[in-house]
Amino acid sequence: FDHVIYASLKWTFALLIGAATGFIAFLINVAVENLAGWKFTATFWVMQYSYILSFFVYVLCNGLLVFSSVVIVTYFAPMAAGSGIPEIKGYLNGIDTPGILLFRTLVGKVFGSLGSVAGGLALGKEGPLVHTGACIASLMGQGGSTKYRITWRWLRIFKNDRDQRDLVTCGAAAGVAAAFRAPVGGVLFALEEVTSWWRSHLLWRVFFTSAVVAVVLRTSMKLCNDGICGHFGSGGFIIWNITGWQDDYLFFELLPMAMLGVMGGLLGAMFNQLTWYVTSWRRCYLHKKGDRVKVIEALLISLLTSVLSFCLPLMKQCTPCPEGAAHCPRPSLDYDNFVDFHCSASNEYNDLGTIFFNTQDDAIRNLFSSKTQHEYSSETLLIFFVVFYLLAVVTYGINVPSGQFVPGILLGATYGRLIGMLMVKMYNIDEGTYALLGAASFLGGSMRMTVSLCVIMVEITNNLQLLPLIMLVLLISKAVGDGFNHGFYDLHAELKQIPILEARPKRFLRHLAAKDAVNRKVVSLSRVERVENIIRVLQTVSHNGFPVIQRLPNGESVFLGLVLRSHLLFLLKSGADFQHSPVPRHNNLNGTRYDVTDFAKTVSSKGLSIRDVGNLSAESMNMHLDLLPFVNPSPYVVAEDMSLTKVYSLFRQLGLRHVCVVPKPSKVMGVISRKDLLPEVLEDKRPSQIEMTSQASS
Amino acid sequence: FDHVIYASLKWTFALLIGAATGFIAFLINVAVENLAGWKFTATFWVMQYSYILSFFVYVLCNGLLVFSSVVIVTYFAPMAAGSGIPEIKGYLNGIDTPGILLFRTLVGKVFGSLGSVAGGLALGKEGPLVHTGACIASLMGQGGSTKYRITWRWLRIFKNDRDQRDLVTCGAAAGVAAAFRAPVGGVLFALEEVTSWWRSHLLWRVFFTSAVVAVVLRTSMKLCNDGICGHFGSGGFIIWNITGWQDDYLFFELLPMAMLGVMGGLLGAMFNQLTWYVTSWRRCYLHKKGDRVKVIEALLISLLTSVLSFCLPLMKQCTPCPEGAAHCPRPSLDYDNFVDFHCSASNEYNDLGTIFFNTQDDAIRNLFSSKTQHEYSSETLLIFFVVFYLLAVVTYGINVPSGQFVPGILLGATYGRLIGMLMVKMYNIDEGTYALLGAASFLGGSMRMTVSLCVIMVEITNNLQLLPLIMLVLLISKAVGDGFNHGFYDLHAELKQIPILEARPKRFLRHLAAKDAVNRKVVSLSRVERVENIIRVLQTVSHNGFPVIQRLPNGESVFLGLVLRSHLLFLLKSGADFQHSPVPRHNNLNGTRYDVTDFAKTVSSKGLSIRDVGNLSAESMNMHLDLLPFVNPSPYVVAEDMSLTKVYSLFRQLGLRHVCVVPKPSKVMGVISRKDLLPEVLEDKRPSQIEMTSQASS
Repeated sequence: FDHVIYASLKWTFALLIGAATGFIAFLINVAVENLAGWKFTATFWVMQYSYILSFFVYVLCNGLLVFSSVVIVTYFAPMAAGSGIPEIKGYLNGIDTPGILLFRTLVGKVFGSLGSVAGGLALGKEGPLVHTGACIASLMGQGGSTKYRITWRWLRIFKNDRDQRDLVTCGAAAGVAAAFRAPVGGVLFALEEVTSWWRSHLLWRVFFTSAVVAVVLRTSMKLCNDGICGHFGSGGFIIWNITGWQDDYLFFELLPMAMLGVMGGLLGAMFNQLTWYVTSWRRCYLHKKGDRVKVIEALLISLLTSVLSFCLPLMKQCTPCPEGAAHCPRPSLDYDNFVDFHCSASNEYNDLGTIFFNTQDDAIRNLFSSKTQHEYSSETLLIFFVVFYLLAVVTYGINVPSGQFVPGILLGATYGRLIGMLMVKMYNIDEGTYALLGAASFLGGSMRMTVSLCVIMVEITNNLQLLPLIMLVLLISKAVGDGFNHGFYDLHAELKQIPILEARPKRFLRHLAAKDAVNRKVVSLSRVERVENIIRVLQTVSHNGFPVIQRLPNGESVFLGLVLRSHLLFLLKSGADFQHSPVPRHNNLNGTRYDVTDFAKTVSSKGLSIRDVGNLSAESMNMHLDLLPFVNPSPYVVAEDMSLTKVYSLFRQLGLRHVCVVPKPSKVMGVISRKDLLPEVLEDKRPSQIEMTSQASS
Repeated sequence: FDHVIYASLKWTFALLIGAATGFIAFLINVAVENLAGWKFTATFWVMQYSYILSFFVYVLCNGLLVFSSVVIVTYFAPMAAGSGIPEIKGYLNGIDTPGILLFRTLVGKVFGSLGSVAGGLALGKEGPLVHTGACIASLMGQGGSTKYRITWRWLRIFKNDRDQRDLVTCGAAAGVAAAFRAPVGGVLFALEEVTSWWRSHLLWRVFFTSAVVAVVLRTSMKLCNDGICGHFGSGGFIIWNITGWQDDYLFFELLPMAMLGVMGGLLGAMFNQLTWYVTSWRRCYLHKKGDRVKVIEALLISLLTSVLSFCLPLMKQCTPCPEGAAHCPRPSLDYDNFVDFHCSASNEYNDLGTIFFNTQDDAIRNLFSSKTQHEYSSETLLIFFVVFYLLAVVTYGINVPSGQFVPGILLGATYGRLIGMLMVKMYNIDEGTYALLGAASFLGGSMRMTVSLCVIMVEITNNLQLLPLIMLVLLISKAVGDGFNHGFYDLHAELKQIPILEARPKRFLRHLAAKDAVNRKVVSLSRVERVENIIRVLQTVSHNGFPVIQRLPNGESVFLGLVLRSHLLFLLKSGADFQHSPVPRHNNLNGTRYDVTDFAKTVSSKGLSIRDVGNLSAESMNMHLDLLPFVNPSPYVVAEDMSLTKVYSLFRQLGLRHVCVVPKPSKVMGVISRKDLLPEVLEDKRPSQIEMTSQASS
């Protein structure tokens, strides 16, 4: 019966995570679009009177928005800075970054990204949404925030490592699904990029969460159809809908497409490398100088962005409208091509302003737009690309929530359209198609995903005809990029010292054996150990897991299992299990006073450290602790001479944290093959064996 | 340098597999469409003169096509019968079905499915295409067919289990990609349904293969634009393109959609159960009576199908054309709605004929068609559904290649449209949308996939707007279906006694330990074993792996590794390593006379059996064999008391075939954590340790 409740709770959680993430994403979208909208409205309104004044309004609006973001992140939620995806990836691979899933981080992420995105910085809100989804999932799983005392104790059956990780996987998928309104892309992103393993029943739960997100988003976007959401609500469910476009291509076009792929690989790899240099400089020098420096840095970058995006279009000469264009220049507050920005004649538009003095979403829409041949001059595209590329490089890593998806799409679309302009001189094709493929190539070259990026690109543009081309471009750009460095998230995880295991073990691992990876002398504990010894061990070594060995009366010893550092700390702190005699007290694993959930570390906190135990009295120090009830009795073991490549895949495929290395066994009790594990074979053993097992362990 | 060749070969293979599968799928499509087209042309032509004569022409054409198929399969390629997906799934999960990947099977599959699909049976060509792709991949990997002596010896580095399985995964994905022109769906199908594990670099290779398939298909379909492919070539890259359809839905519609999901789950589960009964009856009784019975059975079912699809429309009254319909009735050999079949008036059409007396592809296109409200009467849909459902049940399992995708889509579309007709009376919606969702629900209820089906449905219809609905319908129908039985492929794998491990271990496994799964007494071999002993062991026990134990001079013993039955048989048959003295001859693992590929079982053959070894001379029997060079020195081991749930996930996630159960270790040499496996940590050990390891083993 218990497991029915458990299963229904799991699905209820998936539903709630989907609904909450979808709804929050919707609110963020509405808020960002409106903040940015008001900003541009105000700027354009003042512009009628004075360009200098409107420049100040623009700079001030951006500065204020960025200031709100950097203050929230710096002083309230430091873990909300950056994209969050490397940390989530680390978490799902078994490495906790303290504070990454706190309620405080969630709040900081949501409100921080409002300011940073609406403030016009060269960053996106997609990465932060993934982190937001993961936070929501984790908080639900723990039954609320402990610190803010919003907890439901009965929900604590989910307070174990595995269930928590499953929930966070759902949350991450929901985040992507909500960010791009791409439900299937979300599922695949969670599987391809974030986790290192998958189980098919988790897949279905993730899929369900994404479907809920999609339904919630659609339904809430319907509410906006009447215009009650202000500047938001003009688009449909597909962000950049390009159906009815060029849906065919010539065979020879594969060549320029391949070229796009190569360019994407090179530019993406360079982008990764440059952000790596800038970020590591920031971490080592700049951000060590205190919080105030972080705030000033963000404001300076905001100022730089504002100046460039305002002044560069101003210096650009306007272009006469093409003949037959319906809205040129566009009506003042419409979201369309052909922005009138400092143009003297009435039928002129400023092509640099159209992409630079605009929100990134609209700039991408304009670059993707079809049937607008030669709307942009190649000079404009080149200037924008170089400036925005450098801006994106310096912006990533300042102390605000920042994603790399949308800037990546924008950069890729720019050089894609540039290539398209060269091609259109030779053949009758559409520049917008090349912009789309350019976007795919840059993302492929920087993030190095394949299937999930491909599905996301299709879902945000609704053009399946181009699928084969997108696939090829992605593969080429990924291959080229992989020749230079790691993917964006892996590189930044490395920088943050999150030890994510790569997908593929290095080749030299096959020449090493498991015993070569054992760096430190192993420290074992006895079954009944003196408290003093335990404390000394915990103080002197930093291991997270300790083998527990029992010495039998006949002089032999037997390995009982692995006890975790966190569990030992909990036991020491509680002190309730201390005993005077060194004789084992517990006969079996049952009957302890603890619930399994008591040991669960709250994901959001740092966990206990040896300092939290405090000074125990001399009496306590002399007491003993029977560790048997607290060990993991069957950790995965490998023989000392097992190839490290095999150990590596064990860690990655099963998501392990510890493996015990044991001596080569002296005998084998049996060989299990697949047939032995079929339910019908094992069914017979079911009743009798359960008794036998429990007798054996008693 | 070797691994550069290896890597480039891997990608070359992926390219070749994609190109070959894409091209063969294209040829099959052209051939099937033309065969079916000629059949209908002939029938309609004769119909002008006499209905009875045209009936005989129709029955004869169908009979001949089915006869060709069943004869090829029965007498030439018996393993080509059925869908092939359960066997491929088994193969990728570590269970070989002999003969499943032979060149002969490939030929049988290709030519068999021409006859069975063009012959109008209630089955599809999609499952067989998956099998075809897998065969192509496997044959390439082995460097051609051994039997037909088309081999390239230098390709034999791929003759190991893992590389072969990777190639077959690529091939299966290519098959789906080619069948539905759905490249991403193919990748996901291979991952979700076929394999039980994944590695991200394999993912990219599979993705590449699918992309190649897509490009090849598009390019070759271009060739058909001029009409040189006969009846094939009218459609575009998207099989059932429905862009520009109803792309929005009301919130209340979620209710009938959910109802569709429930219906799909029930009908799909019933379908699985019925095919299970019919197939197991066939296996136990009918097909034991010899090959002739199989041929007669297929012909009888062909006759039944022909009679029903000809006579039922004939008995149906024609419907007057709706006003304003452009092509009603359709021009005689066009592929369109409104078929004129035995209609008296010139502006009438036969709605049952439109879906029944037609190829399945066109029937689906007609059912999906939008803006054709009330084209079909509910009576027609009901009759067709019941008749076709029963036909599909009895047809699956006859001795021809048969897939279940297209019949499933057709069945689902029928009841989906029926529900749509009920809804359209209340609201202004499109019946075609409901047909599409019905198709999704039936596939979900029968095959129980989620992500891959969802992507395939989107890719074959090119309508992303409906994605959230498709997701929900799939989830509901899967959940309902799972309440009754296993998915279609799992059920049929079970019937074929292919022991595929389910995704989720049964709950009671957690109460069992590894030692409980060891059924049979383990039989160990010594390091240097007498030939006579080995033969006796192989004759008396049926295990596939044997632990090799070495007794040390001090009386202790040490476990050297696992030796496989197939390797022992090879050694016995060759006899080249026999030695007279019982003293170990080999000092280390190198310097044996065999190439690693010599041991590789050809996937396509049955492998050696103990009978193949023959009678050895008395002298040989007394000789010895040093097994050390042939053991797998580090198989995965588990302690005897490890929970079976953990053992289970070890098998599934790593795709293992054997695990050795060892006694609980007496000591632990160390604990490896994730940080110990980072390349930068291990890098230092690289040069010195390699020497140490090789010294230790010498």
